Amino acid sequence: MTVQILVVNPNTTASMTETIAAAARGVAGAWTEIIAVTSSTGPASIEGYYDEALAVPGLLMEIAAGERRGVQAAVIACFDDTGLDAARAMAAIPVIGICEAALSMASFIAQRFTVVTTTERSRVPVEGLVQRYGMTGRARVRAADIPVLALEDPASGAIGKLRDEIARAVEEDRAEAIVLGCAGMADLAHQLQADFGLPVIDGVGAAIKQAEALIALGLSTSKRGAYASPLAKPYRGMLKSFSPGAVAAE
Amino acid sequence: MTVQILVVNPNTTASMTETIAAAARGVAGAWTEIIAVTSSTGPASIEGYYDEALAVPGLLMEIAAGERRGVQAAVIACFDDTGLDAARAMAAIPVIGICEAALSMASFIAQRFTVVTTTERSRVPVEGLVQRYGMTGRARVRAADIPVLALEDPASGAIGKLRDEIARAVEEDRAEAIVLGCAGMADLAHQLQADFGLPVIDGVGAAIKQAEALIALGLSTSKRGAYASPLAKPYRGMLKSFSPGAVAAE
Amino acid sequence: MTVQILVVNPNTTASMTETIAAAARGVAGAWTEIIAVTSSTGPASIEGYYDEALAVPGLLMEIAAGERRGVQAAVIACFDDTGLDAARAMAAIPVIGICEAALSMASFIAQRFTVVTTTERSRVPVEGLVQRYGMTGRARVRAADIPVLALEDPASGAIGKLRDEIARAVEEDRAEAIVLGCAGMADLAHQLQADFGLPVIDGVGAAIKQAEALIALGLSTSKRGAYASPLAKPYRGMLKSFSPGAVAAE
Amino acid sequence: MTVQILVVNPNTTASMTETIAAAARGVAGAWTEIIAVTSSTGPASIEGYYDEALAVPGLLMEIAAGERRGVQAAVIACFDDTGLDAARAMAAIPVIGICEAALSMASFIAQRFTVVTTTERSRVPVEGLVQRYGMTGRARVRAADIPVLALEDPASGAIGKLRDEIARAVEEDRAEAIVLGCAGMADLAHQLQADFGLPVIDGVGAAIKQAEALIALGLSTSKRGAYASPLAKPYRGMLKSFSPGAVAAE
Amino acid sequence: MTVQILVVNPNTTASMTETIAAAARGVAGAWTEIIAVTSSTGPASIEGYYDEALAVPGLLMEIAAGERRGVQAAVIACFDDTGLDAARAMAAIPVIGICEAALSMASFIAQRFTVVTTTERSRVPVEGLVQRYGMTGRARVRAADIPVLALEDPASGAIGKLRDEIARAVEEDRAEAIVLGCAGMADLAHQLQADFGLPVIDGVGAAIKQAEALIALGLSTSKRGAYASPLAKPYRGMLKSFSPGAVAAE
Amino acid sequence: MTVQILVVNPNTTASMTETIAAAARGVAGAWTEIIAVTSSTGPASIEGYYDEALAVPGLLMEIAAGERRGVQAAVIACFDDTGLDAARAMAAIPVIGICEAALSMASFIAQRFTVVTTTERSRVPVEGLVQRYGMTGRARVRAADIPVLALEDPASGAIGKLRDEIARAVEEDRAEAIVLGCAGMADLAHQLQADFGLPVIDGVGAAIKQAEALIALGLSTSKRGAYASPLAKPYRGMLKSFSPGAVAAE
Repeated sequence: MTVQILVVNPNTTASMTETIAAAARGVAGAWTEIIAVTSSTGPASIEGYYDEALAVPGLLMEIAAGERRGVQAAVIACFDDTGLDAARAMAAIPVIGICEAALSMASFIAQRFTVVTTTERSRVPVEGLVQRYGMTGRARVRAADIPVLALEDPASGAIGKLRDEIARAVEEDRAEAIVLGCAGMADLAHQLQADFGLPVIDGVGAAIKQAEALIALGLSTSKRGAYASPLAKPYRGMLKSFSPGAVAAE
Repeated sequence: MTVQILVVNPNTTASMTETIAAAARGVAGAWTEIIAVTSSTGPASIEGYYDEALAVPGLLMEIAAGERRGVQAAVIACFDDTGLDAARAMAAIPVIGICEAALSMASFIAQRFTVVTTTERSRVPVEGLVQRYGMTGRARVRAADIPVLALEDPASGAIGKLRDEIARAVEEDRAEAIVLGCAGMADLAHQLQADFGLPVIDGVGAAIKQAEALIALGLSTSKRGAYASPLAKPYRGMLKSFSPGAVAAE
Repeated sequence: MTVQILVVNPNTTASMTETIAAAARGVAGAWTEIIAVTSSTGPASIEGYYDEALAVPGLLMEIAAGERRGVQAAVIACFDDTGLDAARAMAAIPVIGICEAALSMASFIAQRFTVVTTTERSRVPVEGLVQRYGMTGRARVRAADIPVLALEDPASGAIGKLRDEIARAVEEDRAEAIVLGCAGMADLAHQLQADFGLPVIDGVGAAIKQAEALIALGLSTSKRGAYASPLAKPYRGMLKSFSPGAVAAE
Repeated sequence: MTVQILVVNPNTTASMTETIAAAARGVAGAWTEIIAVTSSTGPASIEGYYDEALAVPGLLMEIAAGERRGVQAAVIACFDDTGLDAARAMAAIPVIGICEAALSMASFIAQRFTVVTTTERSRVPVEGLVQRYGMTGRARVRAADIPVLALEDPASGAIGKLRDEIARAVEEDRAEAIVLGCAGMADLAHQLQADFGLPVIDGVGAAIKQAEALIALGLSTSKRGAYASPLAKPYRGMLKSFSPGAVAAE
Repeated sequence: MTVQILVVNPNTTASMTETIAAAARGVAGAWTEIIAVTSSTGPASIEGYYDEALAVPGLLMEIAAGERRGVQAAVIACFDDTGLDAARAMAAIPVIGICEAALSMASFIAQRFTVVTTTERSRVPVEGLVQRYGMTGRARVRAADIPVLALEDPASGAIGKLRDEIARAVEEDRAEAIVLGCAGMADLAHQLQADFGLPVIDGVGAAIKQAEALIALGLSTSKRGAYASPLAKPYRGMLKSFSPGAVAAE
Repeated sequence: MTVQILVVNPNTTASMTETIAAAARGVAGAWTEIIAVTSSTGPASIEGYYDEALAVPGLLMEIAAGERRGVQAAVIACFDDTGLDAARAMAAIPVIGICEAALSMASFIAQRFTVVTTTERSRVPVEGLVQRYGMTGRARVRAADIPVLALEDPASGAIGKLRDEIARAVEEDRAEAIVLGCAGMADLAHQLQADFGLPVIDGVGAAIKQAEALIALGLSTSKRGAYASPLAKPYRGMLKSFSPGAVAAE
């Protein structure tokens, strides 16, 4: 009766996967096994559209591999929800992005909230997700001007900058809750919640619970319409192995 | 380490509470205790704005009572998410509506989906919720022309009408998933999913999992801003006992 | 040929009803009789979602009583438009909220305007109304940090705070007009308009004129669709007497 | 204590002005004097963007003349709300369009409604107004395929086509109310309301009542921001006489 | 194989037409002949809704004259896109507004950008265009507080004010690109782009290229629906000559 | 003074590149050289999110190679605008997607239009683009149920299906113009325009003209904010060579 949830860090930095895995295990149910993996190809960190796009092939490989070994759900542990639509089309199991999971959770406990992400390069892409997920008017996005990997380094001053930006969100946006806008912040939610006295939501934890929920409810990605399985066709060159093998019914 | 989740049927029909409780228990985690209660005052079923408004005092009483006895979260088991904002402002524990929970779940597994609710009287209010929750453009709402309590009566033909409307949603809306738009349909999701071959989402089950998620994540309603605790003040007449007792800090 | 318009103060503070009644009478037509009543049950003031919800039963009782005695329209004199949908479904006569009336009036004389309401607790609910009434992008909402009942007390400093907030709206929002966001401010519109040199709109007055307009035009709430009369059904417990007596046609 | 409201028919067909004037007088208050005028220059009927634009100079001349003779408000009796913004900037008195007035009235008595206008050429412009006035999602627009001036001719079959289109709106749109989308339909509202058994709103009547309301409330167009008075400057050629004479303060 | 593009300055100030013509010629293709004309009737500059409306007849005359002499496209060189819909309905050739052209260009090279226009009177109308063209959320509008004709006068200090406002847009809006919000700024784009180090878009140039594009692609305004040719009908008075001569098919 | 525009077919089917190149050359200016290339890695056709994502690395390689050889702009010849944001962040030259170019062109000549794309799998992604580009409410999307590569095969019946769907768009959507929703349809625009008597827009041609326009105007992608150059960082595994080499300034 154990369930296995795959958590993919779509960047190739294994130390960040540790942070993510710990956060995932900290909230997982007693019978949930967290399988955390690091992408084997692509950028060391995801900062902006270019890194995002190039993280997708590695991400899809990990989800496909996880699905073959029998995991029941997959979580994409990057706040840009990189590759989410492609993964949903590819996989039979449900796939959850940490941004969508975090925004949903926030919407259940606050009317107005602020996402604090890392770099200015990521701010507009996250605003795009806020719009996609129907939260325009409820959520603002701020960048704390922190390189993603600085979050792994206590001496970088990144945490201090993050705290300063949260303080500004509370004061200037009258934020009722804070969403941490990077998987690399997953270990900070509890302390920040205690210190600031308002809900602080980490997307990794949120996504694990959504994945468990979908499994328990017997729900998976619809294979009608937008997420229908990829049609069988040749793929060429370096990405040849990604060719969908089966003929999918429309 | 058990958690207790209160599920309030905000109409006063106990037989519907049975259906709801069974659905809740069917998806609840091993350590979750479902406490299902029926409102003691208000309409026998909730069909339209008038019933909705008059279900709120009874609903709030049940949530307040549940909170006093120590439940960790509350679910409002009516698809209109009746009284959700008032309950969130009143309670320290998180409160989840079954419509918001169902729409969130649907958004994780489908790009386009259709809510099938009971009566035409409820269609426009549910469309209002679709807009509130940011799903305009993704979700359509249909009414199957079923009185709510007919769902309790196998001889009423209600299930047949519901199936017909789902068939129309699949054909005409190209729905990728179906959301059941009434708590009284909670027992039908699995069978319909099997029969129609696409995800069918019941809000009661979805809300239980969201409530468990919030508890596991240590999150509750923000008390800053829109959901700040009600200010202490006199209440008069029949509703005198609802007067907030404590002075809330802004 | 006299018309009677019922104005319900949905909070239970009679002194505020005086202010409201005076404002209503100040703008009513020569043949309009204003019948101002105070709710007999519920909160002494409406500040936030909880008070709002619990003001509804008392409000509905007054509108039902007014309808029985023959009034031709009803106005809900609370800027949250508390209970508006329920009242419209219940009553055969037209029902007007002061927020919707004020926003309409403002939209006829300004492209951009600011609502100044009382407390931060009310700001987000009013923003919700701005969205519902299609004024997002045209109207901003500010809170002057005034408890509602302080408006009744000249020594409270409330008027000074209100003036300060209007000044900020003119300067920072470049507001072309101001909407007073509380029924308790109804007596202040003329003086503020003179002092600030821009239109200042009071919702009570606006709603009286809209009610007169609907009566003169022979229009009342549609009984098709969302506002169809409540279906006959049992109500239980404390709210038993609210049970709709008649079988409404769909 | 009489008030004078100017009603401008911005097309140059005097017989339509008769229809409009009669509708206006039918709903005006006892002390309201309706001054109905026909534009002296421009198109015989307004069907589409080109006619619309060329009706504006004649319309503005009539409003300026009305303002000089002391009317307290002006109504633009064309459902395209032709020239509304220019008129508001020009005049010190309030100016109301019949489309905006009708949509406001409809929003007070129905959640969903349909505008039935004349020709396909006018349908998209009216949809543009529906969006401008914040009614997208609530109001649909249909064209009955009637030339505007056919409404003046009982033998044209126009009324039959209008009735057919209303019937389709009720059936297909589940319209709760109907808005008549042409000033030339002003005389038909009562009969259609009686025949179809749902509210039918005429914009001419609605605009008269809104104009009376603004006068009674002491409100006029804000002169700050978008509707600030035109700056004094030379105008050349045929339209020389339109040059604003006074230096307006920003 | 030469193409002729008509550029109409819809205000009556010939010196501004010079600026516009120079900017147009500076970007036009080798075989494009720019025919720049000044309107012969209407306001000396277009600042706000009133000037806008009264510039339309003169504008339409120029476009009709241009069409008769055989130009293949027309550009309306006023950032309010004055008379655009009327011109499209009237003409068989394509017609481009400089605001729509500039916003399109900006959308191809930036996610977030700011329009800097002249006067506060023009700010809200331009915001209306931003909404119409689907750029809400991407584009902000600022006014530099410059009278339009001051742009023609080096001693006016207008350029300095424009630079200050651009600096604020970069700093406060984090604008990625700047759109110049007045035809009279057409000569400034290159220098400002060099000085501020980010793309600066002039609408005149943008519109010329869009006009060339439509010609090369063999595309012109659709004559079905909203832009169908005006119906033949009498026009009276001063504007008699505008009467559409031909019976257009629906 | 020749300009070179790179047109990348992001699928790996060279015969489709022929169609695209011919369409591009058919509209290009006299001094424009079209360099059409086929991606060397990825799917043979792009149908849905999965193919889309896996077409991006090959696409980026071609744009980077084109930039090194000195092209002045790049066009992505797939109607899903695959990889557009990543390409814009990566490249110094402007990059245009054929969907955005086609929608812009359509918006200049029609108020309401319909995109006819290939498969149901692509319909929802294209609806997503319609929303992103601000055309919701103006553009509908239909799928003709044609596999992309069937467009290359005259015997497939694809053209007939496309014509049927266009006919339905004209009839049911009252489309004023048609946008061809696949690069493989680029050769059909002229014939369909002649046959249906309304504008038919091909995105490949539209994008070439937009690219020429940006070059002529001296505009390229802003490097501030969302499209700032990718930060230098290690990339691992199969995609190692994509690592951005230069340190970009924020």
